[in-house]
Formats: sequence, structure tokens, C-alpha cells
Amino acid sequence: MKKLDLNVIKKDPSKYEGQVITVGGWARSVRDMKNFGFIDLNDGTTFKGLQIVLNTEKLSNYAEVAKLNSGSSLMVKGLFKLTPNAKQPYELEAEEIEIICATDSTYPLQKKGHTMEFLRENAYLRPRTNLFNAVFRVRSEAQFALHQFFNSQGFVNLQAPILTSSDCEGAGELFKVSTQDIYSGKKLNPADELMGKAVYLSPSCQLEGEAFALALGKIYTFGPSFRAENSHTIKHANEFWHIEPEMAFYELEDDMDVMEAMLKYTINYLFEKCPEELKFFDSFVEKGLIDKLKNVTDNDFARVTYTDAIKILEKNNDKFEFKVEWGSDIQTEHEKYLTDVVYKKPVFVYNYPKDIKAFYMKLNDDGKTVKATDLLCPQVGELCGASEREERYDVLMNRIKELGLNEKDYWWFLNLRKFGSVKHSGFGMGFDRFIMYVTGMQNIRDVLPFPRTPNNCEF
Amino acid sequence: MKKLDLNVIKKDPSKYEGQVITVGGWARSVRDMKNFGFIDLNDGTTFKGLQIVLNTEKLSNYAEVAKLNSGSSLMVKGLFKLTPNAKQPYELEAEEIEIICATDSTYPLQKKGHTMEFLRENAYLRPRTNLFNAVFRVRSEAQFALHQFFNSQGFVNLQAPILTSSDCEGAGELFKVSTQDIYSGKKLNPADELMGKAVYLSPSCQLEGEAFALALGKIYTFGPSFRAENSHTIKHANEFWHIEPEMAFYELEDDMDVMEAMLKYTINYLFEKCPEELKFFDSFVEKGLIDKLKNVTDNDFARVTYTDAIKILEKNNDKFEFKVEWGSDIQTEHEKYLTDVVYKKPVFVYNYPKDIKAFYMKLNDDGKTVKATDLLCPQVGELCGASEREERYDVLMNRIKELGLNEKDYWWFLNLRKFGSVKHSGFGMGFDRFIMYVTGMQNIRDVLPFPRTPNNCEF
Repeated sequence: MKKLDLNVIKKDPSKYEGQVITVGGWARSVRDMKNFGFIDLNDGTTFKGLQIVLNTEKLSNYAEVAKLNSGSSLMVKGLFKLTPNAKQPYELEAEEIEIICATDSTYPLQKKGHTMEFLRENAYLRPRTNLFNAVFRVRSEAQFALHQFFNSQGFVNLQAPILTSSDCEGAGELFKVSTQDIYSGKKLNPADELMGKAVYLSPSCQLEGEAFALALGKIYTFGPSFRAENSHTIKHANEFWHIEPEMAFYELEDDMDVMEAMLKYTINYLFEKCPEELKFFDSFVEKGLIDKLKNVTDNDFARVTYTDAIKILEKNNDKFEFKVEWGSDIQTEHEKYLTDVVYKKPVFVYNYPKDIKAFYMKLNDDGKTVKATDLLCPQVGELCGASEREERYDVLMNRIKELGLNEKDYWWFLNLRKFGSVKHSGFGMGFDRFIMYVTGMQNIRDVLPFPRTPNNCEF
Repeated sequence: MKKLDLNVIKKDPSKYEGQVITVGGWARSVRDMKNFGFIDLNDGTTFKGLQIVLNTEKLSNYAEVAKLNSGSSLMVKGLFKLTPNAKQPYELEAEEIEIICATDSTYPLQKKGHTMEFLRENAYLRPRTNLFNAVFRVRSEAQFALHQFFNSQGFVNLQAPILTSSDCEGAGELFKVSTQDIYSGKKLNPADELMGKAVYLSPSCQLEGEAFALALGKIYTFGPSFRAENSHTIKHANEFWHIEPEMAFYELEDDMDVMEAMLKYTINYLFEKCPEELKFFDSFVEKGLIDKLKNVTDNDFARVTYTDAIKILEKNNDKFEFKVEWGSDIQTEHEKYLTDVVYKKPVFVYNYPKDIKAFYMKLNDDGKTVKATDLLCPQVGELCGASEREERYDVLMNRIKELGLNEKDYWWFLNLRKFGSVKHSGFGMGFDRFIMYVTGMQNIRDVLPFPRTPNNCEF
């Protein structure tokens, strides 16, 4: 029996009206009403399953089928019928059912209402639930929308390396990588590594991205990044997916335009491709999710200088645990105030004090602030971090010296400022946080297929 | 001055005919003919640059411009003209040129005809050359074509983790990952790692892919994979990009159909999107490349059992350094004979002896062979490795015991065979090798942006 995928049927159900077809998949639920029954069958290619109608008269193995546990795998041959007046638009009247593999009482997902923690412990099975089917389908469509956005805008995809010998990007703790027997207790030497030196997992592809943008104009990377921090929050994972575009000849304003266009494009794409999934999230995960996302696609993002944002926040310092003043970091509670109370939509805060931002960001003429921006979004906080890069050799060299960095570590990065340097800008977006934002999922562990966090590297 | 990208002009040059426009980019070459001159300007958004015409009468800084080295960055305002009778279809008559950053004699890419080795040492600059502009543009378009192929066929993209606690996939040496001070000489303990155990870089996402295919039907992963082997060949890198699709309900024949369709789709996409680049490779990298690729898109791939392939090879054992017999590995010289002499096109060799293939491959009824296939291609050799997976719990458990593997390491992989197990198949393709195949580049170091190989982890 050759199986027809449910997503193929869904594209044009009328094509199959009155035909005998074969489908395969897993029983989500089986209801036995004595002389007839129903199976909600899903093969994973769609969010909603197909209703299989069972009838004792038509089905020789009715008794066996009606006893099946959820999770059992089946092939079903039957008559396909459009049911315009029923809850579901079509159904299949079973004529033959082959039970491929019946689950028994050891199957972990038999009951409904498992805790998120239980589902995390069963991460290899959780995409079989409605919730995680929707999360990972939306994640997949969102990643495709992003590739499509950048490709259509003339960006070249750069598959930058994960292994790096540079530990100098100041992005916090790095994972070390070795080919030696690191638990032997012997004194090991970096020179004995396969690559002849100490190697780390890269937290960012920005530097490589700059080199390629200064050759190919506009590039983006989209792959895993790593931070070895011992963070036990709901927003941090040690391995996360990272999008890092970089554009030659772009200034900070252009950079903001790209971020805004990218997010609107991707969310509109999800509205088009995943309406059922978004409706499900809106009903069961985050009430008001669809309105929240429409608010993003239908309005211009707010743009406010750091200095003005601080003025607004200072007036409300009585509301905050951490009082702000010019020069302070903008912390979660302040982000929340700006996005949820003041602007009620995504807001770019830009021109930050140089002392709280990275060395490579372009110095403004005031000598105090840099052309950096964070995109803050309601609920999720910082979604993107961006800057125009310092393209002036002397100014960059001064910053490197001022901060006590070793200029030798940056030889080729500095050379880019000598060899046909031009203005350029870029940003980074944590893709997992974006998925939290569009699904309403509260914990980064529930948008990553197999999350890697402190004390957790299962599957 | 706001710059117009060259790829925007290229889409509809007639739109700009007779207009004054501004472009920006880098001078690839500057020719000074005393009263007039030419700059080949490229901003990286296209393969071919834009010819800028310089005229002493129109250009106040002609003398300065005409002296520029290649690699210098410029903004050019000028009159855009279609030139249907000239070598290039259009040009720009410069009226104003702003020199942004002139290179001096220290710029490494001034001369033509650098060695590939020299360009590898300057990997941060080599995408500025025609050759690497073409390689990385084709790489980008190919990755997009692959995402588009799988997305359009209803595959869910799975962003599987790189960090793994499993060292048991038998894919050779693994990189170890640590958060401890590995060069301190102190005795370290896996339990003290951030994740509470020893962690490695994953060589394959197949096992995770199977879990997701058995929930979402058809999935694919596309990301970096790692092998810590000390291989100094032109075909191996320690970090490479890997595509691993996995399909529930698919048998080995269906699996071959997916590989064949995927490769035809991607190559046809490149014919459509990158004709200039492919022509360049055909002229300067591999004569006959385009014919070779048309041969792939226009013919059915050959399919031959391992047993029949061995019969063919045995008759020609006098031609081989390593003589084959049933049970032998098919080595490079044999692959070459099959693809270049016998079939002259891609060929699937299938049903290999179980002893030379992995434990998870489905045992045939003969008890001796497994449902595995390698796709061999002219010149590049093995491009994809594939198999139907052993979905029968008892048979898989027997293989695990037979090979002395520890069944505890495979607890969830085995559970997948208990909980609604169905037939399923998948494959892996080394994306870098595919890019070697479609560009004609001979060394994997020249299709990876920043290759990671033994003794090499620069940039």
C-alpha cells in the first residue's frame, strides 16, 4: 500500500472525494462507541489529523483496532469523503486497517495534560503532541521564511565556521574543543591539538561576516552559536541558533530598516502558512498572540535614542528595582516598561554609551555614544542587537588600545579597515527567542528540539 | 549619496537608461589611457562588475582616480547607458567619484594569478576575487535551492543539536568539548562539566532525525557536522556542512528517488540562477562542467546492486590496485570505474554486505545484506550515503548485541522501535562535496569560507 501524505490531501481535498485512498500514521486518539468508532490519525505532515471512521460492519479487525492505544502506527485504506457540515472538513471511512506497531502501557504519551517538564524528559517523543508539532512546524517555516527574505533581497548566505581559534570577541565564556584525552590527568599542550592550537566554539560569526560583506555586499549567517555560561534562565541556552546579517555601505538606520522588514516578512509568512498553528497558540499558549503579532506587522517600530529612553525611564525610577541614569544598562524591567507601557510595540533604542557596548561599534561624533541599537519587543525583551561597525582604522585601533585588547588578535579585522574599507552594519538575532515570541512559548527549552543547557545534554 | 546595488540594476537595466545614478563598490581593475580610462567596479552583489568610464573632461579628480590600486573603495555618480553593441551590456559614465579608502602596495590581491594556497592564506579577502565570488555565490544559491526543495515537498527543517553526550555512533573520532581548564594539568572529571557529563561535537544528526521523522513525517537537518580525523586529503574537512533528511514510511527505493530529485532540482536551480558563474567554472575551472551537470539533470541515475557491481568490477580486477571480491569495500578506484567508465553518470549502488555497513541499517531477507545505498558521482565519488533503517525492535537489538554495542546507549533509539515504529529511510549528503561537484573545485578547502582542517583554524 502506497501512502498518501495528509499535507497532499489538505492542498486539494476535493480531488479525492469519493475515492478509495491509503494513508498511514499514528493514532492520536481512538474512540470506541461499540458499533462504530473514530481514530484521529496524524502522519506528522499537517498540524491537524485526519478523522478515520470505523464501522464494525466494514472492518474485519474492528475489535482489535478499537482497543489500540494512542501512538500506535497504522496504514488505513478507506473511502474519502468531504464533510462540509461537520467539525472537520473531510474524513476517511476505513475499509482495511493494517496495525503496524501497537503501543502498550509503557508508551509515555498516553495521557493528556503532561507537564512541560515531563515532555522535556521525553524530548524524542514530544513532537508527536499537538503543541510541539505546532512549535517545530512553525520553527521550520520561520527558518525558511528568513532564508527566503534574505535570498530575495540579494544577501549571500555565509556558512561560517563554528570552530575558532579566537577567544577574543568578549561574548562571555567559551566552550573549549580538544582532540586530546582531557580526562587523563596528563598535562596537555595546545600545540598538540589536531589544529595545532587551542580551539573554541564560536559565539558569533560577526567578524567573518564583515570580511564577506566587504567582498559580497550583503551576507547573512544562520547556524548554531555557543555560549558556555552557567545561566539557568528561561531565555538562555548554551547552544542556540543565530542569524547574523552584515551589509556593506549600510548605516545604522538602514540596519534598523532590514530588521524591521525581516520581522514583518517572517511574521506575515507565518500568518499565511501556519494559520492553524497560530490560532492554536493564541487559544492555548498565549491569549492575544495573533493581535500581538498583527501589531508588529501593521505598525512602524518605534525608534528612540538611548538618551531619550533614559529620560523617560528616569521619570519612573520609583517603579524600578534598579534605578537608571545616563550610562546605566537597560535591564529587563526597563525594557518591559518601554515595550509594554510606553510604546506597546517593538522599539529600537539606539546610540548607546560606548562604555556599555562592544569595541567594534562605530563612535558617534559626540565621542561618548556608539551607533548601536537593541530591538526590544513586548514580552520577550531584546530580540536583536545591532550596530554600525567602526570602519575607520585609527578610531578602531584607538578603541582596541583603550580597552587593553591585543591588536595582534585582530590583525585581519584591522586589515579590513585598510583594504577598501567602507561603512557597514549588521545585527544578530537569537532565532530561538524569535520562535518564543511568535509561539508564545515561555521557555527556550520548549522551542529547541533538544535543548542544551547547564546539566542537560540528553538525546 | 545613496547607492544602487548592481544586482538591482542587473534585474532591469533599461529602467536606468539615461539616468544619473550612484553606485558604490571596489575597483577590480583601473585602466588609465591618459584622457580617458575604465574601472571595473564590483559591489559584490553580482558576479560581473560594472564598467565605469572615466573622462578627464568630466571628472575633476581624474588624475587621482586613474592612479588607484585595485581593492580601493569608491562611490561613483554618473550617467547610465545601455551599450548593446559592446562587450558589456551597459556602463556608467562617471561624473563624480568619491574615493572612500584607497589601498596601498600592502594590499595582498593586487596581482592576478595568485596561487590557491596564497588565497587560502588570505581567506578573509579571497571572496573579492572572481573565482571565489562565484564559488560562494553558487554555494549560497545551492543551499537556498535545497531549503526550497525540502520545504516545497513538505519536509520540516530540524535544527538538531551539535553538542552531544553520545560518542557511540561509530562515525570515527569525535571532538571533545569542555568548560574546564583543559591545559591546567589538573585531573579533570566529566561530572564537573557544565552539562554534568562528557560532551562531544556531533558527527551526524541521524538519530535525532529519526525521532522527528517518526513524529513529523519528513524532516531534514542542514548544519555543520564534525569529525576529528587527521585526514590530509582534498575531500575531508574536520567541520563540514551536512544535509540529513529522514522520511517515515519511506523504503530504500523511495529514498533514492528523493536524492535523485533533490540533486536534479538543485542543479536546475543553479542553471537558472547562476548561468554566468557556471559558464566561468566551465571555462576556467573544469572544462565540460556544464555538460557534466546536464548529464545529471537529463538522465535517470543508474541503480545497481552491490553484488552486481562487484561482478562488473571483478572482471576488471587487473585494472585495480585493490582487487575486489564480494564483501570488499568499494574504494575510490572502483567508484571511479563504475561512474566514469561503466555508467558515465551518477549511480546508486545498493544492498551492501551488512559487515561493511552501520548497525542501524535494515537487514534484507537474505540475512547477509542491508538496505543501504551510496550514490556515486563521476569525479567526486560518494556524494550521499543512505539506508532504510532497521525498524524491527528485535532485529535491531540483535545487531546491537552482535556488534558488542551497549544497548543502554541506545535506549531512546530502541524505544522508537517500540512506540509506533514504522519503516523509514534517510540519507546524508556532504554539502561541501556537492559544491565541489557543481563548481569543479578540486579541494574542499576552496569551497568552505574558512576551512577547518588539521593544523588549520585561521580566521
